[in-house]
Formats: sequence, structure tokens, C-alpha cells
Amino acid sequence: MAEIVILRLGHRKNRDKRVTTHVFLAARALGARGGILSGERDDAVLESVRKVAEKWGGRFSIRYEGSLRKAVRWAKKNGFAVVHLTMYGERIQEKIAAVRKRRKVLVVVGAEKVPAEVYGLADFNIAVTSQPHSEVAALAVFLHEYFGGRELGARFPGARIAISPSERGKSVRKWKE
Amino acid sequence: MAEIVILRLGHRKNRDKRVTTHVFLAARALGARGGILSGERDDAVLESVRKVAEKWGGRFSIRYEGSLRKAVRWAKKNGFAVVHLTMYGERIQEKIAAVRKRRKVLVVVGAEKVPAEVYGLADFNIAVTSQPHSEVAALAVFLHEYFGGRELGARFPGARIAISPSERGKSVRKWKE
Repeated sequence: MAEIVILRLGHRKNRDKRVTTHVFLAARALGARGGILSGERDDAVLESVRKVAEKWGGRFSIRYEGSLRKAVRWAKKNGFAVVHLTMYGERIQEKIAAVRKRRKVLVVVGAEKVPAEVYGLADFNIAVTSQPHSEVAALAVFLHEYFGGRELGARFPGARIAISPSERGKSVRKWKE
Repeated sequence: MAEIVILRLGHRKNRDKRVTTHVFLAARALGARGGILSGERDDAVLESVRKVAEKWGGRFSIRYEGSLRKAVRWAKKNGFAVVHLTMYGERIQEKIAAVRKRRKVLVVVGAEKVPAEVYGLADFNIAVTSQPHSEVAALAVFLHEYFGGRELGARFPGARIAISPSERGKSVRKWKE
């Protein structure tokens, strides 16, 4: 079973709260197993992601690690390939097959300014288009390509709430705690 | 040639500036042709998306339309299918083939709270997982599925700046205005 962890670099409490939360929630929904928040420590982000994970089930854990280098060292020591998503990188459509051979992947997504050393630390610098857009969108396409669409059928065991797909309206199931 | 336009509902100037900008920039990068901002009027968002489109090329236009109903009426009159992305909808993996038959699609993405009428106005209510995550991620997966990955090779004619993919570092080309 593949193990994908997302490292969010350079988080700034004031500016990035919502986008960083989107990064981690999208990661969880699309099959990643964990997240690491770097940059400014932000307990509100950690807390809100944990609450979603607890309520909606599945296995997604998140932690803070201020040092980018420490996070990457931990990943490499544990057999993770390091994939840095950047508009300057190589085309995902040409590299995804090579990345898929690795069962453990640390996906690094930056906020505004990414330190130059990240390009060297990464095993792959990968672009989801060479256009300026959104790290949330880039991560979503990366995970979708990596898992080949199977992530859309993922289960989330232990959920206290779940939605049943419906043509119109809302169908929500809840379980007692 | 397919024509995809994104309608962003319920934008709030204070809260949504960055996420809404991500929605439109991801739309442009992943092959959409235009955007409609609804909710609060926000010229800063329109302006920043237009600046990117002008500098980085391609054809992406954006406008403001305060009335959700007017926007949907315009779309239906012009032959667009209306696809509402919502965690409550039907599974994208089961509905995308039907949506792909439509060459013009208005993709509706909400902010926090979506008016109930949207579920009825839409031709398709579609979920990119039934988990809570990010409208930016949902839109990215939708566009990637709709275009079948061909959007990753899209060209952006008339660009004043472009990036050449590279393994490490940054390769930027600029043209005189």
C-alpha cells in the first residue's frame, strides 16, 4: 500500500491559513496518509485538520516540523522519495511513471517563496503545467495521477459521518459516538 | 474545441480572496476558457487574474456577475451544461463520461455556503470524493478528468513569459513587449 505524506513549506499564519488547510484536506481526501506543516507553527490549522480526520474517518495524521531539512532527512531515512511540486519542474506526464515505482513519497508544496535548496534536496522536481496557478490544484492532479483514479473510491473507516452520493440534495449519515 | 467556464459563487472579499484567485488560476492553467466571479464584487481578484492571463498568454477571460441566476441563464441560453461540484453529488468517476459529451460546460464552485437552488439549477451535481476538502482540488480533478490529461500539454499563445521544464532550478524565457 502506497504511503504519501505532504510537506507544506513556509506556512505563514496570517496569509496561508485557508490555503494550507485546503492542501491538507485535499491530501487526505485524495489518498495521502499524513501531513507535515512547516514554516510558522499554527495550531489552529493542525487542530482543524485533525478534527476533520477524526470525524470523517480514515487514517490521516498531521504534525508540525519547523525545520525543512529535518523533515526531508526523516523522509529519506524512512525510504520516501521526495517530490517537489513546482511550476519550474519536469512535466508530470513524463515523470509520473518513475514516481509511481516508489511506494513511499513525500510531496513538498511551497507557499509563496521556496528556498533554493529544495530543488536540490528533491528526488523529483515536478510541474503540473508550467503555468502559475495553485499548489492545491497541483497536489490534487499529482495525487490523482499517482493513484490512477483509485483514490476516488477510497474508504474512510471509523467515520462518525459520511455522505451518500445523490443526484440532487444532500444525503448525510451520522453515527453515535 | 471544448469550452469550459468556471462560476465562483458566494465570494467574500475578506475571506476568499486567495482561494478564489486559486480557483481561477487553476481553471486557466488546466484548460478552462473563462471565469465568472459572483458574490461580492472584488476588482482586485479580477485584476490579478487578468494580469496573469495577459502576461502568461492563452485565452482566459473573467468577469463579474452578481446574480447567480443571471449567470446560469446566460450559460443555458448559450448551450452550456451546468455542472455543480459538491461533496453531496454523484461520483465523478461514474458521471464524467456523460459530462464529456457536452462540449460547453459551466462549472459551478461554491464558497462556504451554497444556496439550495443551485442543486436544482445544475444539470449535474458531481462529487470529487464525498469528503470535505477544497473546491480548488475538486475543480483540478474535474478538469483533468474532463480533458483526459490533454490539458497538461496546452499551449498559451501570446505569452510574454514562459517556463521551460527542467530537472533542477529555473528556466524562464521572456519576450519584449
